[in-house]
Amino acid sequence: MTPRRHGEFELIAKYFAPLARGEPGAFGLTDDAAMTTPKPGHDTVVTTDTIVAGVHFFPDDPPATIAQKALRVNVSDLAAKGAVPRAYVLAAALPAPVDEEWLGAFVAGLKRDQKRFGIALVGGDTVATPGPLTLSITAFGDVPRGKMLRRAGARAGDDVWVSGTIGDAGLGLQVLKGRDLQLSERHKDALVARYRVPEPRLAVGCGIRSLARACLDVSDGLVADLRHIAEVSRVGIRIEASLVPLSPGGATALAGGRVSLTELLTAGDDYELAFAAAPSARKRIADLAGRTKVRVTRIGSVVSGRNVVVRSADGAPLPVDRGGFTHF
Amino acid sequence: MTPRRHGEFELIAKYFAPLARGEPGAFGLTDDAAMTTPKPGHDTVVTTDTIVAGVHFFPDDPPATIAQKALRVNVSDLAAKGAVPRAYVLAAALPAPVDEEWLGAFVAGLKRDQKRFGIALVGGDTVATPGPLTLSITAFGDVPRGKMLRRAGARAGDDVWVSGTIGDAGLGLQVLKGRDLQLSERHKDALVARYRVPEPRLAVGCGIRSLARACLDVSDGLVADLRHIAEVSRVGIRIEASLVPLSPGGATALAGGRVSLTELLTAGDDYELAFAAAPSARKRIADLAGRTKVRVTRIGSVVSGRNVVVRSADGAPLPVDRGGFTHF
Repeated sequence: MTPRRHGEFELIAKYFAPLARGEPGAFGLTDDAAMTTPKPGHDTVVTTDTIVAGVHFFPDDPPATIAQKALRVNVSDLAAKGAVPRAYVLAAALPAPVDEEWLGAFVAGLKRDQKRFGIALVGGDTVATPGPLTLSITAFGDVPRGKMLRRAGARAGDDVWVSGTIGDAGLGLQVLKGRDLQLSERHKDALVARYRVPEPRLAVGCGIRSLARACLDVSDGLVADLRHIAEVSRVGIRIEASLVPLSPGGATALAGGRVSLTELLTAGDDYELAFAAAPSARKRIADLAGRTKVRVTRIGSVVSGRNVVVRSADGAPLPVDRGGFTHF
Repeated sequence: MTPRRHGEFELIAKYFAPLARGEPGAFGLTDDAAMTTPKPGHDTVVTTDTIVAGVHFFPDDPPATIAQKALRVNVSDLAAKGAVPRAYVLAAALPAPVDEEWLGAFVAGLKRDQKRFGIALVGGDTVATPGPLTLSITAFGDVPRGKMLRRAGARAGDDVWVSGTIGDAGLGLQVLKGRDLQLSERHKDALVARYRVPEPRLAVGCGIRSLARACLDVSDGLVADLRHIAEVSRVGIRIEASLVPLSPGGATALAGGRVSLTELLTAGDDYELAFAAAPSARKRIADLAGRTKVRVTRIGSVVSGRNVVVRSADGAPLPVDRGGFTHF
């Protein structure tokens, strides 16, 4: 940490230093920098993601879930690379005055997730901002040398797989915005939870390290993210819409005509893994799903060309040109 | 990079990807994460610092100097650890709409400094913000295993040294705020440059790796930062005010009675190195100063106790209790 002003030292000592306890390279957050000794025989995977109040979460979301989202979007990137989380640094721009009750709950959320994902705070910076709460996390993970999963590498003939269910977080955002999806409270709560607290698929990501030829985490919407794989791998992708896994809430909203399949396939914030693997890996992938108790579904194929095409049940292409929206 | 929305992909491809050229682990910023292979026999030093428009720089500062400040405050932390810069990731929260001319100049500033400090962009995230421009950089450096300089380690009897000159950036900020320091344009320009573009003391930091017992970079003001060394090293520090090195502009403002010595010793943003070393290292430190052409000045001693005391020329203690202000 490089605390700049007195108020910060107290905040760091009281709230953040306990998160670094037991990490020798963090020096109790009393130094200018942290030290990490990389794991022998491993590459270090580095990822950084920023979330802004009013853009990526609601300012009045529970502070613990804001903390969890900030950390988990980064852990999800590590999962997509097949990396094991090790450490992170947090840069927090906090609107003044700092509400200590809020901060206590925020730190409790981080603490819970640190334990869950085996990741430790090793440094950071807190600054005041006249703008919205802005949280940047940079996370580090370890992957056996040369084994990092990439977006590039998919080949025509590969299967395309996705973990979990698709479209839930987008629906959760709609619920929070007050849109009537004609869903039960139970379904609505489940969708909102998926929006607020993504579930990084670490066990799947590490499990497919030697099976997948290309992988990423779905943050921009399934179709937009498959386009990234297609572009970087220089292939086309064909998805069967009827195979895309939906949650009970998602399926109900779709069946009730309250949402289109296109919307589900282009909504963001899923944080599921999408990956390509040779058909010869099918049994091992099914075994992995059984072992990790995470649903993994084959939804299509890698083909020649450059396009991502989604076919509906009747064989006609589904219009998915929107594919992720721009906020610039 | 984990670009979230289409506008981002174009910005990243056009402006940021060229900054990552030649870095194999950056994957042209087309992947979710970067990969770094740590230098054998070295520890990785990690530091993160955030700067916010209206807090740490003026929104209408030249875009190139904003970029340089964002990078250099991090490189300065690496210098204070005796580390050699290797790579960095940038999280930029940009107010919409993005001014591409501004962005081009910003990236040019980064590019210049990347070359100067031997550091490469390996990843990042750009998001839109309804608030002020917020730039978080996390930087990585290499230090021979076990050789990282710490804030802890100063011992009674050590000399206290500082690089460069003290108080200039604080005066530069006052000039920008319109305060009349009765200085020539040349002096004012030099002070403003010190505020906008800090000078990381890498050659000094690496040169004192085996000489200094404790080190940090002065960002909160000389006295406040020496207190950090005193607290963590569990020692006291006595500074002779008359020995503290001032620039021509700083000395002129002081001589003209436009600024107090206390103000110079407690102003922030110097980004000079302050360090403690045994008296037996004096000659080697003087040699280093000659070799690196960076002024390095002995300004006091480490003593027993816990306080930082500044003595004026007449031997009386100078009031420096303010020592760094709080912005929370």
